[in-house]
Amino acid sequence: MARQAGELFEEFQELTASEFFRKNKQMLGFSGKIRSLTIVFHELITNSFDAAEEAGILPVIKIDLKRVDKDHYILKHIDNGPGIPEDFVTRVFCTMFAGSKFRNIQSRGQQGLGCSGCVLLSQMTTGKPAKIISGYKENGKLKGVQMTLKMDVKTNKGLILDKKEVEVTETGVCVELQFKDVSYSLSEQGAFEYIRRTMIANPHAQITFRDPTGHKYIFNRAAEIIPPLPKEVLPHPRGVTADDLIFMAKHTDKRRFRSLLTSSLSRMSTKRVNEIEEMTGIDLNKRPKDMKWDEAEKIVELFAKMDFMAPPTSGLIPIGAEQIEKGLIEILKPEFVTATTRKPVTYKGGVAFIIEAAIAYGGQAGRVVGEQRKAEIMRFANRVPLTFDQGSCAITESLKSIDWKRYGIKDLENAPVTVFVNIVSTNVPYLSTGKQSVAPEPEILHEVRQSSMKVARKLQKYLRAKKAAKEEEMRSKIFETYVPIILREAANLAGTSVPEYEEVLAKVTRRAKAELLGDTLDE
Amino acid sequence: MARQAGELFEEFQELTASEFFRKNKQMLGFSGKIRSLTIVFHELITNSFDAAEEAGILPVIKIDLKRVDKDHYILKHIDNGPGIPEDFVTRVFCTMFAGSKFRNIQSRGQQGLGCSGCVLLSQMTTGKPAKIISGYKENGKLKGVQMTLKMDVKTNKGLILDKKEVEVTETGVCVELQFKDVSYSLSEQGAFEYIRRTMIANPHAQITFRDPTGHKYIFNRAAEIIPPLPKEVLPHPRGVTADDLIFMAKHTDKRRFRSLLTSSLSRMSTKRVNEIEEMTGIDLNKRPKDMKWDEAEKIVELFAKMDFMAPPTSGLIPIGAEQIEKGLIEILKPEFVTATTRKPVTYKGGVAFIIEAAIAYGGQAGRVVGEQRKAEIMRFANRVPLTFDQGSCAITESLKSIDWKRYGIKDLENAPVTVFVNIVSTNVPYLSTGKQSVAPEPEILHEVRQSSMKVARKLQKYLRAKKAAKEEEMRSKIFETYVPIILREAANLAGTSVPEYEEVLAKVTRRAKAELLGDTLDE
Repeated sequence: MARQAGELFEEFQELTASEFFRKNKQMLGFSGKIRSLTIVFHELITNSFDAAEEAGILPVIKIDLKRVDKDHYILKHIDNGPGIPEDFVTRVFCTMFAGSKFRNIQSRGQQGLGCSGCVLLSQMTTGKPAKIISGYKENGKLKGVQMTLKMDVKTNKGLILDKKEVEVTETGVCVELQFKDVSYSLSEQGAFEYIRRTMIANPHAQITFRDPTGHKYIFNRAAEIIPPLPKEVLPHPRGVTADDLIFMAKHTDKRRFRSLLTSSLSRMSTKRVNEIEEMTGIDLNKRPKDMKWDEAEKIVELFAKMDFMAPPTSGLIPIGAEQIEKGLIEILKPEFVTATTRKPVTYKGGVAFIIEAAIAYGGQAGRVVGEQRKAEIMRFANRVPLTFDQGSCAITESLKSIDWKRYGIKDLENAPVTVFVNIVSTNVPYLSTGKQSVAPEPEILHEVRQSSMKVARKLQKYLRAKKAAKEEEMRSKIFETYVPIILREAANLAGTSVPEYEEVLAKVTRRAKAELLGDTLDE
Repeated sequence: MARQAGELFEEFQELTASEFFRKNKQMLGFSGKIRSLTIVFHELITNSFDAAEEAGILPVIKIDLKRVDKDHYILKHIDNGPGIPEDFVTRVFCTMFAGSKFRNIQSRGQQGLGCSGCVLLSQMTTGKPAKIISGYKENGKLKGVQMTLKMDVKTNKGLILDKKEVEVTETGVCVELQFKDVSYSLSEQGAFEYIRRTMIANPHAQITFRDPTGHKYIFNRAAEIIPPLPKEVLPHPRGVTADDLIFMAKHTDKRRFRSLLTSSLSRMSTKRVNEIEEMTGIDLNKRPKDMKWDEAEKIVELFAKMDFMAPPTSGLIPIGAEQIEKGLIEILKPEFVTATTRKPVTYKGGVAFIIEAAIAYGGQAGRVVGEQRKAEIMRFANRVPLTFDQGSCAITESLKSIDWKRYGIKDLENAPVTVFVNIVSTNVPYLSTGKQSVAPEPEILHEVRQSSMKVARKLQKYLRAKKAAKEEEMRSKIFETYVPIILREAANLAGTSVPEYEEVLAKVTRRAKAELLGDTLDE
């Protein structure tokens, strides 16, 4: 009766990453028609932004979404980035887990799943190949190549169906993909809202979007500054684990462990290394490969006790309060807006991050539900809108912990406000593959809270001033209505003629002014 | 200023699955100390259960969790399954995306990430190798092998540090792993609760667990029946996409498309294939590799219109209402319990699933919060407890949509009830890599609602009967207290002697009985 192990393992097999995700596409965020299309927009836009900025180019993107049939669309996405060299095109679009973003650098994408994920979804739903045109410079010369590609999921590699040189007028990538079983929607989780939010956090970009009805939206640049390029920073000693040290030691070309430490970690001087050697008693002149786990662990434990300067913040480029305000004004035309950028701090002791928060009130702030404007929370990570999994996100959790009543907002849910929060980090701790929610690290919760309370206080001040101005206006109105009557009655009683209202007002004003200046009246 | 594409691609690289998950361990569910340990328990227990049941063995698991230091644990997990043949040990424990469960079969695990994920976490947090002993039968002979393994993340393969033959007395696998940065907790999301819930849904299993304090918990078997082995079922025509057909066509050894169809899909007879040929005009005698996407799409469109029998349900093995009740009684000792198993239905038109629901009231049902018992929702997928991401799960969503007041539960949150829901399917549509929440397919939402309302109605009946019994008891008490007095007073008034209470009662009862039977009284 009982089956033997051998039989049970007859069907044992190994999947490639593409095969795995073909069976589990929801792990790439592809679940539901609306969400699937939004994720496609997300992946293509973030890749274009990252590429353009890395090359020092102000991003310009043109997106054209045509509806062929019910839920069958053709998406054309064109950017003005540096392009992709011919040799890398198939790998970027047809190999999962391949990418150039696995460094310790702040970038929108991090996982090498973006473009290839879109190609996989397109192929799975339509069987159509991807059409790619890449314009790029090689030795200063502009080159253009056009390819028609399929992904071979069994090997996780690209199959070139067609390839030819083409003439291009500038660098950039044009991607044409077809999708079925997706849906374009104007809802909060739809592709249009995704673009709108993207533009708030990226006021230096320009996106032209032709929607399936043929309507052309032009989101203009609100700021002409290319964000400074984030620098790749070495990991901070407080941010590495024993496993990281062993991993580095295994794959380094350094010949001694001490030089590995100084060259692979930030804030790590020779003096520091000597201290470590002395305090741990470990011979750091040994070859990296001879480093034992226990020794690595000892060193990491010491890291936790040593005083280090905070991680270099050259690796973190916030949007900046002024730019965020520009973005919010351009898109929401609010009555009031204020933004703040916190100082860099760290979570897990060594991963630097910055929180930016803003609040917009009135105008088109908030979202329209029925006939009312309700509050809207816009979450961003490295300028990328997070549109799903709001409930499990540290940003939402932190905002919910604030007592908004204290800031003059009786009921956050029903106020016409947009709360904006952006987390900037080389390592945003995402909770899921979909990169849609942030893990509740205590320091992140704290920073979101502090920054949001700061902008909330400013909004409160504005709302108070507005209320005071309204009351002042009311009082003025009363003054203007009743004073002439009082003057007339007073004159009647005194038997004098009624003085001119304007004259009285001028006299009162002069007296007030004199009092303010401390002068005596020279009547 | 602008950088050329070539420079930007200098750092382009490809990661293995292990490298990828080393950088993104939260995608395996490893985030937070408590959750990480629970996920480890989950992966090892589900693997043991699947293996034992596939081999036709009643699962017996022994778990020993020792605390070495603050957050440093040694976990020993021993099962009585069929074991793993020597050649497969490294791949099971050290290769991600490798497994034997990629078939269309109902099993707890599906993704080939479980055991290897645990080894990865162990290695990342302690640098310690995994110790594995496998006892298995080869040609009827019992063999034993002991290995010490590390995972080489750069290649996604295992490194054998040590290997020797050992004597074993029975088949099964013993895994010893060390972890740091994890935490054992008695909370709802902790490892202990995970075992408890597992036992409710698997009353045929036995788990002995020694916790870090040395206390030994024995969860006994509540039912002696090995669940029938789910059969691998061919995909239902309604459940396949054009991409599936093309994929099958590409990797088949059949020589004609018609034989591929009949051999790869369920409910697909030669007669059916002839109908398809006729209605689509596609020559199905062609070689599978010559099948075009448009043709596959046409066939899938036709599938949607044809009448098929529902998918064979031999592939789905529910726990069964009686077994669920046994499990709940064993663990919760409730005052009232009822369970129901729905008929198999499909989502997405062709993926069969069954929903089972139960409700337990009183006893240890519900969870203790402060000094009160509150409601507790226990979600399961193929008998596996889902302990995280409750908010985003279709089961929670569906339960929240029920108007519990109608069923005599004024406030679900604060009632001492445990609501149990299990989804049984070859393809549970999980929302995330962590396999912790179910996608909101409309049919799933519907079935959860229907089944839960059914058990809620039974609970309502019980609560009503209980209330009625209480009132009845009250009435009886009144009767017993006052009737003798009335009798005495009546006798006094009439001047007769006081009749015996028992005698009067007997008379009343006889009269009532006679009335019920329509007899006349024969006094």
